[in-house]
Amino acid sequence: MSTTTPTSTAGDEIVEPFDAIDVIRAKRDGGKLEPAQIDWVVDAYTRGVVAEEQMSALAMAIFLHGMEREEISRWTAAMIASGERMSFDALSRPTADKHSTGGVGDKITLPLAPLVAAFGVAVPQLSGRGLGHTGGTLDKLEAIPGWRAALSNDEMMAQLEGVGAVICAAGSGLAPADRKLYALRDVTGTVESIPLIASSIMSKKIAEGTASLVLDVKTGAGAFMREEADARELARTMVDLGTDAGVRTVALLTDMSAPLGRTVGNALEVRESLEVLAGGGPADVVELTLALAREMLASAGRPDADVEAALADGRAMDVWRAMIAAQGGDPQAPLPVAAHTQELRARQDGTVRGLDAMGIGVAAWRLGAGRSRPGESVQAAAGVEIRRHIGEPVRSGDVLAVLHTDTPGRFGRALEALEDAWDIAPEGTGTASRSIVLDRIS
Amino acid sequence: MSTTTPTSTAGDEIVEPFDAIDVIRAKRDGGKLEPAQIDWVVDAYTRGVVAEEQMSALAMAIFLHGMEREEISRWTAAMIASGERMSFDALSRPTADKHSTGGVGDKITLPLAPLVAAFGVAVPQLSGRGLGHTGGTLDKLEAIPGWRAALSNDEMMAQLEGVGAVICAAGSGLAPADRKLYALRDVTGTVESIPLIASSIMSKKIAEGTASLVLDVKTGAGAFMREEADARELARTMVDLGTDAGVRTVALLTDMSAPLGRTVGNALEVRESLEVLAGGGPADVVELTLALAREMLASAGRPDADVEAALADGRAMDVWRAMIAAQGGDPQAPLPVAAHTQELRARQDGTVRGLDAMGIGVAAWRLGAGRSRPGESVQAAAGVEIRRHIGEPVRSGDVLAVLHTDTPGRFGRALEALEDAWDIAPEGTGTASRSIVLDRIS
Repeated sequence: MSTTTPTSTAGDEIVEPFDAIDVIRAKRDGGKLEPAQIDWVVDAYTRGVVAEEQMSALAMAIFLHGMEREEISRWTAAMIASGERMSFDALSRPTADKHSTGGVGDKITLPLAPLVAAFGVAVPQLSGRGLGHTGGTLDKLEAIPGWRAALSNDEMMAQLEGVGAVICAAGSGLAPADRKLYALRDVTGTVESIPLIASSIMSKKIAEGTASLVLDVKTGAGAFMREEADARELARTMVDLGTDAGVRTVALLTDMSAPLGRTVGNALEVRESLEVLAGGGPADVVELTLALAREMLASAGRPDADVEAALADGRAMDVWRAMIAAQGGDPQAPLPVAAHTQELRARQDGTVRGLDAMGIGVAAWRLGAGRSRPGESVQAAAGVEIRRHIGEPVRSGDVLAVLHTDTPGRFGRALEALEDAWDIAPEGTGTASRSIVLDRIS
Repeated sequence: MSTTTPTSTAGDEIVEPFDAIDVIRAKRDGGKLEPAQIDWVVDAYTRGVVAEEQMSALAMAIFLHGMEREEISRWTAAMIASGERMSFDALSRPTADKHSTGGVGDKITLPLAPLVAAFGVAVPQLSGRGLGHTGGTLDKLEAIPGWRAALSNDEMMAQLEGVGAVICAAGSGLAPADRKLYALRDVTGTVESIPLIASSIMSKKIAEGTASLVLDVKTGAGAFMREEADARELARTMVDLGTDAGVRTVALLTDMSAPLGRTVGNALEVRESLEVLAGGGPADVVELTLALAREMLASAGRPDADVEAALADGRAMDVWRAMIAAQGGDPQAPLPVAAHTQELRARQDGTVRGLDAMGIGVAAWRLGAGRSRPGESVQAAAGVEIRRHIGEPVRSGDVLAVLHTDTPGRFGRALEALEDAWDIAPEGTGTASRSIVLDRIS
């Protein structure tokens, strides 16, 4: 019915090759978008010709009707085409990139990037800030005195060549369509859509120009994809998108029912990452760091690298120090400590059977570790320290967790979020051991 | 998951009782909106707290998942509550209102309002302007020299008491939420939704305060509801809404596969309306005018009114003249005539079996009778004059239609829209006679 939708044709004069309303209607009615329609709508949205409210209606129609593989691939390509593309071809090192779909206590990038770089691989980690219950990698590193997230392209390339690992803010030139669309989805209830998540992540990763990519796709209570089947579909979709674009891509499906490690919060997570780099740290964080490092190194042509040795002998820690220092940080400076702490104690005996990642993520966020709106500041020292994790015995009165914040008025609502966070099984009940890596999708 | 959607709660401080994202998600996931959610979201949208892009996503979710009767009723009430309510209780006459869902060549309001008013009934017709292929009643009357659409409430009440009939612009105080939402739906592909159409129409009509309402719900190629089942559902939904709100409401389901009458365009349709008021005019226009007049008069307590007589003896024409004069128009002034005309001729012999309302509506619009964007001006004299209507014999070379415009550059694209508008059956093929009123729903 294009004849009835004259909004962007004035009289006899055609201003644009398509009309946003026709594109919205096509998807609304369950149809497949044509490649030229996708190219146009993403480009016109970036230019401001397709209005926010029109893209919002389209995003909801995509949310409810989905997109076929061909459409997702084209949508991703159109988002890449909206901005600049980077290239690491000038580097003497091979590159390996990693992306996590985000979870509670997910500090893996911090030990992982220097660990992989210790084997002569360049690891560019263009990262973001947190919103809601999951923290951002940049927020965590900013707990380190002096460290700065913003690097120019030249600084980043020099650091990749010299140090090997870079964790910095993604420039605004990569996939600006995605930047705009992500902000829109965030306020319109259209975040949890597999085609939209997959194209958002992969457009940025492909535009970055890495040769290989390992995806950490999380599932469980603390993840965007709570259901394993959805996480699996997201992983498959992203692996296909990467492969189609010539990037060696593999995904690990990993558990996010409970937080990773024993800390949730910015400085707290840096501290735990340092334990891992020093050869210690919680078993789940170490397991996932090693698994992702092996995948990245295999993709970068180093399948036999002994990653455990590089943690044990301090090589990874050396790269960490160089990486922090290269970005103005003082790796020796003491990390900030919260002005106030409060303990959460057990009210029964037993064994921890489950730990609710969502509840703990929300508690850390309410303590000041996360932000409610883009641009808000976060507290470096705020967060939750987990004293009893899954599989561990508990006696009534034991400290389950320590809450940290600079603003003690926040304890009340944080404790509310932790109300049922610990699932404690009576003594004598068997608890299954927790496996972090659930599957590998390539 | 309200804990993950902090966009309208800042820290510990709750700003609004609901979060737009939660409301969007509830409908997105196929749920039923709570009365308090509906009240809030419509009010907050009117206040600008719920953003256009959020309402757009919600409108698409409503489009795709629908609303239950209770939700539609509450949504309608919330839109009424967003503005002022009128009352005709002070009038000495009973009131009867009519609304048409819009079609090509639908000039029925013009003869109908004075005809019903001729029996002592007050007929307030708060009307709009056209957009796209259907014309607006105000655009038509503005073809009359001097006539003005804008009346104050006092002027309108005085004219209803004195003349009986008023056709004027709806004030901006009635259901402002609907005004805002309608403009949004128009650009986001969310117009053709039965719950949204029904609540839009009925919120304005109920806010107007009429005691009785007759709905003309159109179906066929030139209508918003092309399928009869959809039109029937829309009629049923609106009748229920009116009845629930204490307004005596009845709907006629009428045919809009072909244009009504022989003229499409502003001055052209005024001319045809005058023929009807003079006791002549095309049979289909007369049939529908009489059917609607009988319903309105029955609702207003005058079931035995002889409406045919009031057309034949000039009483309706007298009210028309008084109505036009009361709004500054000169009922005797010659109507504008287009600077250019062009004929469309038949290329075969036969009988007209079908006439495509959509094609003819688009042609008239392209000739300048309609607008592509709100606020554009229209040509008073532009339009299509139909010379061979359904059931009439045609010889190759006969004039099927005459196109009128002030800007001859528009003929080309108008003729394109008429390419297949006449369906001419070979001679000897029987053609069924056309019935305008398909059903009555009360």
